[in-house]
Amino acid sequence: MAFTVQEIAAAIDAEAHGNTDLIVERVSEPASAGPDDLALLTNPKFADGLTKGQARVALLWDGADWQAMGLEAAITAKRGRYAMSGLSRMMDPGQQFPEGIHPTALIDETASVAEGVTIAPYAVIGPRACIGAGTVIGPFCHIGADSSIGKNGVLRDHISVGARVTIGDRFWCQPGARIGADGMSFVTPEASGVEKARASLGDQGDVREQAWARIHSLGAVTIGDDVEIGANSCIDYGTVRDTRIGNGCKVDNLVHIAHNVVVGNDCLFAGQVGIAGSTVIGNNVVFGGQCGVTDNTTIGDNVIAGGATKMMSKVPAGQVVLGSPAVKMETNLEMYKALRRLPRLAKQFSDLQKTVSKLGSKT
Amino acid sequence: MAFTVQEIAAAIDAEAHGNTDLIVERVSEPASAGPDDLALLTNPKFADGLTKGQARVALLWDGADWQAMGLEAAITAKRGRYAMSGLSRMMDPGQQFPEGIHPTALIDETASVAEGVTIAPYAVIGPRACIGAGTVIGPFCHIGADSSIGKNGVLRDHISVGARVTIGDRFWCQPGARIGADGMSFVTPEASGVEKARASLGDQGDVREQAWARIHSLGAVTIGDDVEIGANSCIDYGTVRDTRIGNGCKVDNLVHIAHNVVVGNDCLFAGQVGIAGSTVIGNNVVFGGQCGVTDNTTIGDNVIAGGATKMMSKVPAGQVVLGSPAVKMETNLEMYKALRRLPRLAKQFSDLQKTVSKLGSKT
Amino acid sequence: MAFTVQEIAAAIDAEAHGNTDLIVERVSEPASAGPDDLALLTNPKFADGLTKGQARVALLWDGADWQAMGLEAAITAKRGRYAMSGLSRMMDPGQQFPEGIHPTALIDETASVAEGVTIAPYAVIGPRACIGAGTVIGPFCHIGADSSIGKNGVLRDHISVGARVTIGDRFWCQPGARIGADGMSFVTPEASGVEKARASLGDQGDVREQAWARIHSLGAVTIGDDVEIGANSCIDYGTVRDTRIGNGCKVDNLVHIAHNVVVGNDCLFAGQVGIAGSTVIGNNVVFGGQCGVTDNTTIGDNVIAGGATKMMSKVPAGQVVLGSPAVKMETNLEMYKALRRLPRLAKQFSDLQKTVSKLGSKT
Repeated sequence: MAFTVQEIAAAIDAEAHGNTDLIVERVSEPASAGPDDLALLTNPKFADGLTKGQARVALLWDGADWQAMGLEAAITAKRGRYAMSGLSRMMDPGQQFPEGIHPTALIDETASVAEGVTIAPYAVIGPRACIGAGTVIGPFCHIGADSSIGKNGVLRDHISVGARVTIGDRFWCQPGARIGADGMSFVTPEASGVEKARASLGDQGDVREQAWARIHSLGAVTIGDDVEIGANSCIDYGTVRDTRIGNGCKVDNLVHIAHNVVVGNDCLFAGQVGIAGSTVIGNNVVFGGQCGVTDNTTIGDNVIAGGATKMMSKVPAGQVVLGSPAVKMETNLEMYKALRRLPRLAKQFSDLQKTVSKLGSKT
Repeated sequence: MAFTVQEIAAAIDAEAHGNTDLIVERVSEPASAGPDDLALLTNPKFADGLTKGQARVALLWDGADWQAMGLEAAITAKRGRYAMSGLSRMMDPGQQFPEGIHPTALIDETASVAEGVTIAPYAVIGPRACIGAGTVIGPFCHIGADSSIGKNGVLRDHISVGARVTIGDRFWCQPGARIGADGMSFVTPEASGVEKARASLGDQGDVREQAWARIHSLGAVTIGDDVEIGANSCIDYGTVRDTRIGNGCKVDNLVHIAHNVVVGNDCLFAGQVGIAGSTVIGNNVVFGGQCGVTDNTTIGDNVIAGGATKMMSKVPAGQVVLGSPAVKMETNLEMYKALRRLPRLAKQFSDLQKTVSKLGSKT
Repeated sequence: MAFTVQEIAAAIDAEAHGNTDLIVERVSEPASAGPDDLALLTNPKFADGLTKGQARVALLWDGADWQAMGLEAAITAKRGRYAMSGLSRMMDPGQQFPEGIHPTALIDETASVAEGVTIAPYAVIGPRACIGAGTVIGPFCHIGADSSIGKNGVLRDHISVGARVTIGDRFWCQPGARIGADGMSFVTPEASGVEKARASLGDQGDVREQAWARIHSLGAVTIGDDVEIGANSCIDYGTVRDTRIGNGCKVDNLVHIAHNVVVGNDCLFAGQVGIAGSTVIGNNVVFGGQCGVTDNTTIGDNVIAGGATKMMSKVPAGQVVLGSPAVKMETNLEMYKALRRLPRLAKQFSDLQKTVSKLGSKT
């Protein structure tokens, strides 16, 4: 990984200044940068760090006075954070799995493996599975029967892709993700306490001991193009039709997406989000960490939910929501402010009661 | 997977109507059903879908007028959702792991493997482990020393069963489940800030830097018959005695069950539930997704907790609870309604104060 | 595992009484103890249990009258829970992976494996990885390129250690942990709705459909000495610098630690805790189960957070916090008490309004 300042600027559509032949080997924070590092300094607030490190070149904000900072060269970008995307792609050393098909990989003779595929040690590819050109399958991955993965994907290690799963191109998958676990779907011979409590808002009626009968998952999972799934996240099979994740969705670690859920395009779910069965999520939806969505509901396009928001019912398109249960962010802040003042209000109320009581006795 | 309408109806104890020799290859939603599919239509609300698809036969509610729907045949069931259990079992194509013992499976010579067992590629069975008749052990499963799994279980891939774990018959286990991780149990040489804060409800006293000493897990895990554990869920060893999961329990994905927990029979825990150490859960308990239960407490039989409910203390048998901290559902709804109105109440209170003040100055 | 009472007392720095040559084979709870078991009875409250079991020797609290309990021998300890640490270490039968390097383990020829290392079946050690003396690498572990693990570690099964990860001595790692997944870091070409909503506290402005561009993780993960990571927990790479976990930290199951997070020494995180990107956690911090911390914030030394606490902003050192959003525990309890009484307060307020109204009409 060594590039000239000129090469980097060209690759990320940014401007190069000064000694653009300078060679850069890695990216560093300003204060810890060595002489062959590109210091990353897109926020003027942290400019002091440069003097602590040894960087001779930095990625800076548009219009930054790089010469005054004592640098030999600079790359300037209009939106530094976005420039970081291209830069980090260039400089990523990756996992360095051995190229090609490892002799310990077990590939069913009916599977179809396209050109330029890497299959790492101890990976297993099931019957009739298809792996698209240029895709990397890491160690200990299990790609199930009749599943297919598109082109140029990167699957780290220990990943489960269940039977009959369909995944698009440029799939990024972190270690331990489970695509196509059976849905959690059980039924009692007669209406259960849960069904009664839901219908009555709290009364489960006469309780009868009933065992749970399993509903098998006949549907699978369909995932679009340009999707990323985080470490140890789980996406369940649908019951009859497939659970669906649209194009461009990015899912963080330890996320749970239950059976029959439909997620639109370009959604972003942070760590430990949970989405219950049969819920439909629109496009461009963003959930902070530990958000939860109840089953059988709808979240509209462009909804944004702050961390730990619990969506107990439908959220209309475009809303920014917060809290448990979720309400509009401004309503949540108003309710919370009032709650903070409530102990004092209760005290003042008690005082006012006394005042009124005295007034009453006077009149 | 091809059955006549008659065969299906007989298998799921339902009634067949019309051309009962019609052959069905898979189950579909009404609108997307092809001519060889059985349309699943147990809720009259969705009857319109039939006209969009090509189904010639459907699974319908009791008394449905199948002929008026233009069908050639029908199966009617009293409780359609329950009928789906038997139907989905018949039609499940499964994971299709290669049958028998794969040559790459490593089975300790002291392990005991009963008849009809499937052990998939790259599974490892430890010393003295016992696998019951008809059980399927998927790829990359590790079955630890001295553990035992009953008859007719299905373990998907990448599952950890630690040493000394005991599991009953008909165990269903999803990918990446961890049965028998070490409990999280640490102790400081002297009372820690946590112990003091718990005792005083918030005051941790003089804080001293102390390292944590590990308490090893000497207990194991015991799991009953007919239990299902979801993908990437974790059940810890007990400290001295075993952590216990009763018969018929169904546990969803990413659930955490800590050391020494005792769970009764026929409980159902949805995704991302967490149960802290040494807590005792009764029979027929149902937790919605993301529920949490504190350590060393008791949850009675037939308790139902809505999604994201946090049980900070004992919950008596039969209660339906909600909220954080958990209270009875009706109390939660009442508190929440009052909280929604609180900003307005605060404003009205301020007005009333002024009114009273004026009255006071008049008298 | 058989020791005399004398040997055990000496090993755990406790006092032996009576027939100290008695041999003990395992540790049990008093009521279920057999004649060769050491009953664990450190809380006088449970002394009754002894009479139900067959124990001839028990680990008791300091000053316990062991003879009156009908025991032949006893071990007494000042802090029984702490004594349990040493005792459980002695009596732990462990996982019993086959010793030495298993023939199916794949070790890159450039990797460095020190003396006394165990590498279990189907483990993979990548290029230039270093494994310290005495460390145990369990089945299906993948140790990535250029990573290093210190001395005397214990890695259970199915663990991912990504490329370039650095881990100290005496590392304990439970099954399915993911150290070094890629950070969840995405950026839109122009400011996104999330950026706008954060800046405006809820208004995302004109919404534009934008795809997410990936920021690759160039940093790695650095973990100190004496750290334990729970089953299926995930620690992400840093973006530029490493994500860092200090010495002596203990992390439970299903915990999510995002990119760039810095954790101090001797912290304890219970199950399902989530810490968002770039947050800095001090020393000796304790989080109960299901706690969450927002991104880019600071949690001071010695902070204790009760279960399910959501820290939405900075928490000063030494605070004991609770609730969502987190406030000081006493404030939380006060707010909660007031909220419980709020429905009644609202009713009383309405009554008072009427009273005042009547008073007003009188004057």
